[in-house]
Parts: sequence; C-alpha cells; structure tokens
Amino acid sequence: MNQHAPTRKTFEARLRQIGEDRYHDKHPFHHLLHSGGCTPDQVQAWVINRYYYQSRIPMKDAAFMSRVSDPDLRRAWRSRIEDHDGRAPGEGGIARWLKLAEAVGLDPDYVASETGILPATRFAVDAYVRFVRDEPLLSAVAASLTELFAPKIHKDRIAGLLQHYDFANTESLSYFQNRLKEAPQDVAFGLNWVLDHAVTQADQNMAARALIFKTDVLWAQLDAIWLAYVEPARIPPGAWQPGEGLL
Amino acid sequence: MNQHAPTRKTFEARLRQIGEDRYHDKHPFHHLLHSGGCTPDQVQAWVINRYYYQSRIPMKDAAFMSRVSDPDLRRAWRSRIEDHDGRAPGEGGIARWLKLAEAVGLDPDYVASETGILPATRFAVDAYVRFVRDEPLLSAVAASLTELFAPKIHKDRIAGLLQHYDFANTESLSYFQNRLKEAPQDVAFGLNWVLDHAVTQADQNMAARALIFKTDVLWAQLDAIWLAYVEPARIPPGAWQPGEGLL
Repeated sequence: MNQHAPTRKTFEARLRQIGEDRYHDKHPFHHLLHSGGCTPDQVQAWVINRYYYQSRIPMKDAAFMSRVSDPDLRRAWRSRIEDHDGRAPGEGGIARWLKLAEAVGLDPDYVASETGILPATRFAVDAYVRFVRDEPLLSAVAASLTELFAPKIHKDRIAGLLQHYDFANTESLSYFQNRLKEAPQDVAFGLNWVLDHAVTQADQNMAARALIFKTDVLWAQLDAIWLAYVEPARIPPGAWQPGEGLL
Repeated sequence: MNQHAPTRKTFEARLRQIGEDRYHDKHPFHHLLHSGGCTPDQVQAWVINRYYYQSRIPMKDAAFMSRVSDPDLRRAWRSRIEDHDGRAPGEGGIARWLKLAEAVGLDPDYVASETGILPATRFAVDAYVRFVRDEPLLSAVAASLTELFAPKIHKDRIAGLLQHYDFANTESLSYFQNRLKEAPQDVAFGLNWVLDHAVTQADQNMAARALIFKTDVLWAQLDAIWLAYVEPARIPPGAWQPGEGLL
C-alpha cells in the first residue's frame, strides 16, 4: 500500500519516457506533414482541426484556474491565457493560428467558425477540457506536461514546413516560433509543481496516467485526420470537404 | 409564447429595480456596520466570512472564461481576475482584503486559511461559483450585475467606517477605494452584454432571475453573520469564535 515513492529524478525520467513512447511527434501524419508529403487539402484539414484544439486551450486553462484557491498559483497560470488570447484583438496564439490558416488559403472566419471540425477532434479536445475541470489538480497540471516534448516538434515543424511548402514564412509560422519562447517557461513551472506535489507512489502513478491521457488526446486528433483525409480518406458526414472555406 | 420583448431601456430599468428591492445595502447588518454599531468581534466576523466570497470571485470568473469560446469576450473578462489576483504577490483585491483583515486585528494568514468560515457562507458562495459554471452564459453575466449597485454601498461604507472605526484609513480601506475604480468599467461591459444578448422575453426573464439569485447569494451571507454573531449570536459548530486568529 505505502510503497516508498521513487526519487524526484526517477519520477521525472518516468514522465519523460512517456513522451519518448507516445508523444505525437511519432505519428505518421507529422512525418507526412514535415517531410512535405501533405497535399494542400491535407494541410488545410490539419489547420482547421488543430484550430479547435488551440481554441480550447485557454478554456482549459480557465477551467484549471476556476478550481485553484491560491492566488499565487492562479497568477502563475494566467500567463497561458494571455499568451493565447493576447492583450488586444489580433494578438496572441489564436490570432497567429488564424494567420497560418490564411497563409494556407483558408478564410480565417471560416476556420474560427469551427464549422467542419471532425467529430473525433471535438471528442478528444472536449475530453481534455473536461479532464482538467473534473480531475484532481495534480492530474490537470501533469496533463499539461506534453509541453515538455513540444519544442522539438515545433523546431522540426518550422524547418520542415519552410523547406517544403510555399505558404511557410516567418509570418505564417509565427505561432510555432512564439511557442518556442512561451512553452519552456510554462512547462518549467508545471514540471516543478508536479514534482513537488506528487509525493507518494500513488500520486506519481496518477500524474503519469494523466500525461498518458494527454498524449492520447493529441494522438487521437491526428488519427482522425489520417482516417478522414489521408487513408482511406473517408470524410465523416458533416466534416470539412476540400474546397470549402477557402479565401 | 413569443411575447414581444420589452425595449432595452425597459429591461434595464427592470434589472435596476431588482437592486432597489433586494441588494444587500438594505440588510440590517450593513446598517449596523456603516453606522458604527458593530463590535470589534462583529467586524472581524464580517471580514473573515467576506474573505471567502472575495477568494472565490476570481475562481468564478475563471469558470466563466472556461465556457467562453470567443477570445474577445475572454480577454474583456480577464481583467476581473487581474484586478483580484494582481500582477505580483501582495497586489490585487484579495491582498487588499487581507490588509483590511490585518487592520481589524486579524492574522491575515488565519483569514487566508479559510478556517472558521460559516457553513452558510460557503454554501452561498459555492452556489454562485457553480451557477456561473453550469448555467447559460447570459445568466452568468447577468448575475455579475450586482456590481451596478456596488459603487453606492462602497461609498457609504468608506464614509461610515472612516467616521466610526479607528482601524479605518486609506490603506485599510484600499479594497473598497479600488473597487470604486474597477467595478464601473466591469459592469458597463456586463450590462451592455446582457442588454445585447437578452433579445427575447424569455431571455430577459432568465437574466432577471439570475440577478435575483445573485442578490440572494449576497443577502444570505449577511443573514448568516447576523444569526451567528449579532442575534441570537449562536455560532454554529466549527465556525470562528471571537478571539481566534488574532494578530
């Protein structure tokens, strides 16, 4: 019952191994995207669906803050919402994602309308928001630690997109460039918080399960895109059809 | 079924009438407090219990933001959390409330520990957070409109406390002074949002019910203090006892 919990270092290594094993940089869709193998339609499908994830991240962070009674922890977390929503219209991560949408030929208003999102995308993303709203705070913070693995995929993506696609330039990829600056400070805070608060073996197991859950949330989104737009390319009823929502 | 909704002006008057009829400036505890009739213990009981309400306001606002998919609306709402939590430790409305706690002779750490809060205070405040998390957004915004009636009570309170109590000075009352600046801009936004979005008679009824609910939340907190510490002064099991948590 009361196993002696592994050290902080061993626990951190366990969390990092989850990324090695399951983070969505291993998903074949990312290989296709970063190597220049995606058709323009497939890039658009990714931008449309990933918008839904981006749009829910500040809602997820607000759901977390709605459960935190410590003003210091809320204040530390608040910068995540500021990063996504910005300080004025047209600023912040969501606005930068819509610049990418425009660069790949999509009407940003269409993308922001959330029309044509794959149901499987909604289910996965909504499950994440609910998870953060309902599960223990330790699980909610641990789930955010996929950011540990994000800098590498963002660097690979920026390099791959710049090399292979005409739409890629400093402006259209500004979302990823900014995340390279923002994510490390967020995740350093989150990782320390989890290492500080996961004191028992049961806590560490719970945190690890939460991080695994989050890798599932990310992986399932790419699986949905793959099935609908790559192979067998069977688009579910009501989801975005190539040619819709163009500029 | 489809009654023609009253005009914007008529609807606004209906909302303001709710404040005339039910806002907690009419509660006898406020008359006692502002006229100098409270004992030091009663002032302390009020500060301790009202802290719980203050502490939940940013959580309520985060719960609201967690349901808002429009970055512009989230951004407009975010300033409320910033006002309460501040930009650094020791800043913001909650820190200012703890200065008041210190001024009335309470250990701010005791107050922040939320020990001794009356159960009825918790029930009322928690009901408000849940309301904002679960009810339609229109109801959530409408519930915040008690701020329409707050400037008058804050002015009366500042004047009354300064006149009657030794602890009252610019620093100890800085919470109320700041709310005089912050509340009007918040409530102007909220009122316009409600007037814009309550387009049917049913919407207007729902918004009015939400505002009534919120006046109940405020009133119930003062009733709880009255019963426990004024008359019959029967303190429920586990609640703060005079003499506890002093500096």
